[in-house]
Amino acid sequence: MLNNRLKIVADENIPALESMFGHDVLLQRVAGRSMTAEHIKDADVLLVRSITQVNEGLLEKATQLKMVGTATIGTDHIDQHYLADRGIPFFNAPGCNADAVVEYVLTVIHNTLFEKGMELAGLTVGIVGVGNVGGRLYERLRKLGINVLINDPPRERQGDEGFVNLETVLQQADILCLHTPLVKDGERPTYHLLAEKQLSTLKSGVLLINAGRGPVIDNDALLTFLEQRDDLTVVLDVWEDEPRLNPLLVARTQIATPHIAGYSYDGKLRGTHMLRCRFSEVFGVAQPEPLSSYLPQASVHQVHVTNDVAIHDLMNLVYDPYRDDRALRKTLFGDNQPQQFDLLRKNYPIRREFSSLEVLGVTDRSLANCLKNLGFTVNLA
Amino acid sequence: MLNNRLKIVADENIPALESMFGHDVLLQRVAGRSMTAEHIKDADVLLVRSITQVNEGLLEKATQLKMVGTATIGTDHIDQHYLADRGIPFFNAPGCNADAVVEYVLTVIHNTLFEKGMELAGLTVGIVGVGNVGGRLYERLRKLGINVLINDPPRERQGDEGFVNLETVLQQADILCLHTPLVKDGERPTYHLLAEKQLSTLKSGVLLINAGRGPVIDNDALLTFLEQRDDLTVVLDVWEDEPRLNPLLVARTQIATPHIAGYSYDGKLRGTHMLRCRFSEVFGVAQPEPLSSYLPQASVHQVHVTNDVAIHDLMNLVYDPYRDDRALRKTLFGDNQPQQFDLLRKNYPIRREFSSLEVLGVTDRSLANCLKNLGFTVNLA
Ligand SMILES: NC(=O)c1ccc[n+]([C@@H]2O[C@H](COP(=O)([O-])OP(=O)(O)OC[C@H]3O[C@@H](n4cnc5c(N)ncnc54)[C@H](O)[C@@H]3O)[C@@H](O)[C@H]2O)c1
Ligand SMILES: NC(=O)c1ccc[n+]([C@@H]2O[C@H](COP(=O)([O-])OP(=O)(O)OC[C@H]3O[C@@H](n4cnc5c(N)ncnc54)[C@H](O)[C@@H]3O)[C@@H](O)[C@H]2O)c1
Repeated sequence: MLNNRLKIVADENIPALESMFGHDVLLQRVAGRSMTAEHIKDADVLLVRSITQVNEGLLEKATQLKMVGTATIGTDHIDQHYLADRGIPFFNAPGCNADAVVEYVLTVIHNTLFEKGMELAGLTVGIVGVGNVGGRLYERLRKLGINVLINDPPRERQGDEGFVNLETVLQQADILCLHTPLVKDGERPTYHLLAEKQLSTLKSGVLLINAGRGPVIDNDALLTFLEQRDDLTVVLDVWEDEPRLNPLLVARTQIATPHIAGYSYDGKLRGTHMLRCRFSEVFGVAQPEPLSSYLPQASVHQVHVTNDVAIHDLMNLVYDPYRDDRALRKTLFGDNQPQQFDLLRKNYPIRREFSSLEVLGVTDRSLANCLKNLGFTVNLA
Repeated sequence: MLNNRLKIVADENIPALESMFGHDVLLQRVAGRSMTAEHIKDADVLLVRSITQVNEGLLEKATQLKMVGTATIGTDHIDQHYLADRGIPFFNAPGCNADAVVEYVLTVIHNTLFEKGMELAGLTVGIVGVGNVGGRLYERLRKLGINVLINDPPRERQGDEGFVNLETVLQQADILCLHTPLVKDGERPTYHLLAEKQLSTLKSGVLLINAGRGPVIDNDALLTFLEQRDDLTVVLDVWEDEPRLNPLLVARTQIATPHIAGYSYDGKLRGTHMLRCRFSEVFGVAQPEPLSSYLPQASVHQVHVTNDVAIHDLMNLVYDPYRDDRALRKTLFGDNQPQQFDLLRKNYPIRREFSSLEVLGVTDRSLANCLKNLGFTVNLA
């Protein structure tokens, strides 16, 4: 420790650490893949992403270590038992990109309905898996006055209320959104939760969206089903054998994207911010400014509209899912398709969330409320 | 004539006549398809669109008629000899939608280059047919500092300068834009101007755009060519046998649209405005306000951006060609494909031109000039 400043060793690709941690700490950036015990031997705090394995080997020399954080949702790369044994507080960033996924889902819903000449009002949305993502999607839809059916047996067992069984969701939803983790064993596996049998019970004309985990849908069964029924509209962000895709299945989807639903820049900064908040608690220092004060202006950050503006136009101004769709479809027939899938994720462009767009000029209160509930920044004229 | 007001009989689908002609005239609206001699027997002015045949049969009772106008570029539906014999001044609206076509072309160019990871600067654009559309495209590109090769033998013969021969354009253009009329006979036919031989001379990696007339490209030869060479990027708005399309050719295009490049709302109002100007000349009344004062606010009419805004994002905010592309591709496999093509044109949504969008916040002068030269309304911050 220099001048009594805390030393933070962090993955070089965690954004905005400088602005959020300020000059009171000594920040050392290291490439996540080549981080060694030597790098962190005098660190007070270690901040990683999923490419760094955090275990005894990495931490054995780190005698000063008082906090480990990962700016990710997942924790598979962390030996949490070892950290607990050493009494080192550990934090991840659950839900940091949940809003990005929610906005992906809302955007594909609005675009798909627009192209069918339909409106969301009056339809029933079914959500399977009502955690960080599904729960936030539920809240936004409820605020919009949409009829939503939710299914989440684990939460139901914990005593939460308002859930229905899977069969009911499948049979009644006009729009079906999957947001469960991948669970292969146990009482309630989600692996192939939607297989031939379940698919056959779906309502005619349903819009099926999977931005959870690929193998939750039996992809072969889905393809067979789509070959027989052309009323179904399918949007897939996650795939059973990703990064390897079946071009025949892609060809049958309305929108196909390379597991990027959660890839917003705001979400990445939210991950950093969540760790920064935990840092305040651990070291008893002041909490950071709110996340919004660290977010840069979006390249298009304010629009003046009239009351007849189409909602999907505003959504597409922030995020156009068809751009990702076109980029993915271009990669399907090369022999390096899986590598291309990974490259699209790795080189993903900066994408913002709805709140980065301020919408001015709306005088219609119900439109203004709708835009606000969707997540846009709205100021009534 | 009531109260000495001039009587105008007009197609019910010509927009904005009320606001542009005001209350000093008596305006009678008639469905274009069912217009009869009876409707116009006491008309001073007749205004039509292309679905009304204007000939002796229609005009025989119209003894007061002092002006005929068509709010279209084409004049095939007008018996101009008969009008000339009777000494009735006739006007059409040449070039009224030329800016719409130019913006279609600029938009598909910017989108296509973005997807290839390329920039317009440094590329050579070839324009074949440099009339109302091609000439305006030439001007905007020149203002942007782009290298442009132009080919137009009829204009060259009239003594205009700066042209090169077709072979040179085909061999040197990175982006090739066709804007000739369809000419089947004579010295310089444009029918199959690009056939097997010409296609084979195109530069590798060329972007070929046809928003002129379909048969100017031999569509069968183009398909055969595309099956052999996958470096070519093709954008087609017009088709050899439209409204009947060859799905195999569509499948090989980057962007495919149903002959709507010129379909902007601004263009339609410009057509009305051009006739309104001629009306002033014929009847010696005051000229109308400038066109802009009759145009409604666009639903998104002002954006605040940063200097890193992507130009194609601003273009797509005004007009997203992929939306038309998706709508067209959906119609390909129905047995009523040709009718669907016509329906897409008939029910075309309101689309605005770049000038309807005011861009604020740009401080980089070269970006501001670029946006201005592209046609956006730009105010330097
Ligand atoms: N596409 C993307 O880019 C992206 C981004 C973020 C998260 N995800 C994925 O989305 C999924 C949900 O993420 P999250 O952050 O909301 O997770 P979470 O753990 O907060 O929520 C998951 C919910 O699913 C419920 N669940 C578990 N088994 C179930 C079953 N059999 N039936 C119904 N519900 C069940 C759980 O009780 C929990 O409420 C995860 O698999 C995550 O990996 C994808
Ligand atoms: N896609 C659309 O929605 C749309 C809209 C407007 C116009 N158009 C079509 O675009 C074409 C151009 O429209 P315009 O208004 O500019 O017409 P225009 O008559 O103003 O210009 C056509 C130009 O092509 C030139 N030309 C004729 N023969 C040629 C040849 N063999 N080689 C090279 N140049 C030749 C002419 O000299 C003229 O300068 C027309 O066919 C029109 O029907 C299409």
